[in-house]
Amino acid sequence: MAAEKSGKVSFQLKTPKGTRDWMGADMILRERIFETITSVFKRHGGTSLDTPVFELKEILAGKYGEDSKLIYDLADQGGELCALRYDLTVPFARWLAMNTSIQQIKRYQLAKVYRRDQPAVAKGRMREFFQCDFDTAGTYDPMVPDAEILRIICRVEVFEALGLRNEITIKLNHRKILDGLFAVAGVPAEKIRSISSAVDKLDKLPWADVKKEMEEKGLSPEVADKIGEYVMLHGGRELLDTLKSDAQLLANDDVAKGLADLDLLFRYTDALEVTDKISFDLSLARGLDYYTGLIYEVVAPISAPQSQGKSKKRGSNDDDLSNDPSVGVGSLAAGGRYDNLVNMFAPKRAMPCVGVSFGVERVFTLLKARLEKEKATLRSSEVDVFVMAFGGKTFNGFLLERMAIASELWRAGIKAEYQAKVKPRLPQQFKAAEAGGVPIAVILGEDELAAGKVRLKVLGLPDGHPDKEGSLIPKDDLVSEVKKLLADSSGDLASAAKKLSI
Amino acid sequence: MAAEKSGKVSFQLKTPKGTRDWMGADMILRERIFETITSVFKRHGGTSLDTPVFELKEILAGKYGEDSKLIYDLADQGGELCALRYDLTVPFARWLAMNTSIQQIKRYQLAKVYRRDQPAVAKGRMREFFQCDFDTAGTYDPMVPDAEILRIICRVEVFEALGLRNEITIKLNHRKILDGLFAVAGVPAEKIRSISSAVDKLDKLPWADVKKEMEEKGLSPEVADKIGEYVMLHGGRELLDTLKSDAQLLANDDVAKGLADLDLLFRYTDALEVTDKISFDLSLARGLDYYTGLIYEVVAPISAPQSQGKSKKRGSNDDDLSNDPSVGVGSLAAGGRYDNLVNMFAPKRAMPCVGVSFGVERVFTLLKARLEKEKATLRSSEVDVFVMAFGGKTFNGFLLERMAIASELWRAGIKAEYQAKVKPRLPQQFKAAEAGGVPIAVILGEDELAAGKVRLKVLGLPDGHPDKEGSLIPKDDLVSEVKKLLADSSGDLASAAKKLSI
Repeated sequence: MAAEKSGKVSFQLKTPKGTRDWMGADMILRERIFETITSVFKRHGGTSLDTPVFELKEILAGKYGEDSKLIYDLADQGGELCALRYDLTVPFARWLAMNTSIQQIKRYQLAKVYRRDQPAVAKGRMREFFQCDFDTAGTYDPMVPDAEILRIICRVEVFEALGLRNEITIKLNHRKILDGLFAVAGVPAEKIRSISSAVDKLDKLPWADVKKEMEEKGLSPEVADKIGEYVMLHGGRELLDTLKSDAQLLANDDVAKGLADLDLLFRYTDALEVTDKISFDLSLARGLDYYTGLIYEVVAPISAPQSQGKSKKRGSNDDDLSNDPSVGVGSLAAGGRYDNLVNMFAPKRAMPCVGVSFGVERVFTLLKARLEKEKATLRSSEVDVFVMAFGGKTFNGFLLERMAIASELWRAGIKAEYQAKVKPRLPQQFKAAEAGGVPIAVILGEDELAAGKVRLKVLGLPDGHPDKEGSLIPKDDLVSEVKKLLADSSGDLASAAKKLSI
Repeated sequence: MAAEKSGKVSFQLKTPKGTRDWMGADMILRERIFETITSVFKRHGGTSLDTPVFELKEILAGKYGEDSKLIYDLADQGGELCALRYDLTVPFARWLAMNTSIQQIKRYQLAKVYRRDQPAVAKGRMREFFQCDFDTAGTYDPMVPDAEILRIICRVEVFEALGLRNEITIKLNHRKILDGLFAVAGVPAEKIRSISSAVDKLDKLPWADVKKEMEEKGLSPEVADKIGEYVMLHGGRELLDTLKSDAQLLANDDVAKGLADLDLLFRYTDALEVTDKISFDLSLARGLDYYTGLIYEVVAPISAPQSQGKSKKRGSNDDDLSNDPSVGVGSLAAGGRYDNLVNMFAPKRAMPCVGVSFGVERVFTLLKARLEKEKATLRSSEVDVFVMAFGGKTFNGFLLERMAIASELWRAGIKAEYQAKVKPRLPQQFKAAEAGGVPIAVILGEDELAAGKVRLKVLGLPDGHPDKEGSLIPKDDLVSEVKKLLADSSGDLASAAKKLSI
């Protein structure tokens, strides 16, 4: 304990770069978001999977392209080489490959992932951050699971439950359509992924810059312009008809297949009541290589100010590195269909997958800003009863009596506290209860206790309120009286935390 | 994607050594244990803290003695040197040192910690494992928070809620008493920690072996025997009186201080109704250096078979390395008072702490064994309604109709599923519902739908039950009828998961 002797600590007291502690009101808000998301996942038959925070290095190798440099490795201390997980998708694919008895599954996972990226703390982009994933794996009839994922994203579902429903749009595209139209425009097969990544920048760069990048990547201006015509298109399902009337496009097998998928999808999203939230956007490309079909991301105007034109997206390496506070927090969720990822671990296992990942920190940033605007506060603990005592000169503090009463409340499942002092003063105890936002006080006095009674008092009532002074009740009735108060507590008694709509 | 081409994967498909995936019934049981523990922590006014999974290496350095070699380091990839957290106590102390406005707090944290130890999977000892910690930090009147921690451990609290109350004992000792009696017996000050660690082995080794270790560490046989006399003592609070009658012991300041603490403690544990669970055991030493007062661990006969005589404990390096399946899973919880740990980060900050850590994997192992004995099963998803359809030759599968009905149920917050096939066969659908343990079916037929009706059926009823065939209800009443069935479901309908007492 050198520090103690010298009276100094020789290093900076902090969490590692891009990480943070969660405590108090932030933690309560975050847990409420998790509960909401989990309840939606369960409503759709999801089962929970938890995987280790690190995987064998070989499992992660070759899955993230250029972004692999952002993977955190564990030190080689003898034994296996491991790395922190970069997302929840690859561990899920590894699990599917290992568990060969699984034919079909809906799994969800809420867990931290790790990326050695440049942090932008104010916008909620961290090196350690949460992802909340729901994925459906297995062979089903086409587009049926895909449509359910879109339903999970919006409409009485995650964002609705979080009070953000009216603010979100699902931008949607299909990898086969995108790849097909590149081919039709004249992009050589080996350049399709790299041109796709140029298109993906259209939400941050003007067309001229993207075109320039395409020319640098070897396309002629004519081919680039042809792509430009297509990827500027976005709209609702009517865009499907526009594309279907383009004979040159339709002649491409990939395009035809992708359009047929979307035709089917829109029938299902009608039945599931989510079509009105979907914007079919040919400029959406998504960074990750492993998508094979539908791709989508969720944006909210509130998350991407209109001055920016388009929203930012998560995931790919150089997305939204800006620290400009006028730039939104980015996409709130994203995902797609990836039919071949499991084959990287189990080449002979047919296990097509489709899923979505919610960026909880970004949702958190939005909700927190709204709460601050509404001046709503969240309590950091949930104690309902503060057990106090007071008395005259001979007062011994009634610590044992306060303990016994708290014991009785705890036994009944009631959240209770008392001040950990032998002889506390009454104002101190009221102050502590107030600081914690505790709604009910039980007050022990000498005469009252001798008569077998205690005072029960709702805290925070305005002066002049008829119940301001509380009431003397038989000590034996305490638990039932407290339960009655708590049951009635949706109105007066409710703490700010409980009143909050989410 | 070399794997795909060659049809082979060149590495072993597994999780890293000492780690595991959690899924299905195991996951549900684990989550139920977490919910139980969390609700108890909240009942006592705990607020939730979440810290990063890794800390700066300097934060962990010098805190774990010999066990430091078990720390997982992150690779040096440029920037700060970090390591995975080894426990939740040191990150809490780091957080307290950083947040100087905090004067008093009860915090809890449920999170994974990491130790490069020899795993013993069958017993629930892993390299990645959960700890569930509750700690009270700040200056309070003596022993008041300590007594509350003991209350949290047992009695209408964690183990009672888990149905293990009658099976546990809290072994308890006091570092000051232990250190004082070593001094009285003649152990030189500089040898006290190392002799203490020899005593700590008394639950695995016979006295003769421990004595031998003491002699190897430089004690005379007489001094060792004197220690032996003391550390064999265990019992209830009456042992306090025995020790107080020993004038030589009482003359030692540390012993006198420790005995006064225990005197006070037992008054409080009486008020909190936990005294009968406490065994005052002078052989309990605990591995970690940082304890300064009360120390305790929770054992259950079921976790440490009687043939072993004494139970194993978690935490110190060479504890229960045995793979002998007859050895119990070890202590279920442990903790103590550590008044100086925060000073290692903030030398001038007075922040005494006392806490407990629950070994969830061990509790899990016990509960799982009991469930298996009782042949109880846990469902891996919680779906309440399976939406099915059937029809004759012209049957189109009613997929859109099934989707619309599921949408209606989801909107009402009801957990629902349908088979993701355009034209499923009815027996397939019943089989899927049965496999998932889904308690209710909604069945769509052509004639019924035309008449605006659907069939609602409770699944799994015995033949001849009057409700076996279900009933036709107006489609518009579906949500309210399903809610009625679910509200009545505590009896017949309840799934195994819901029936389970924990």
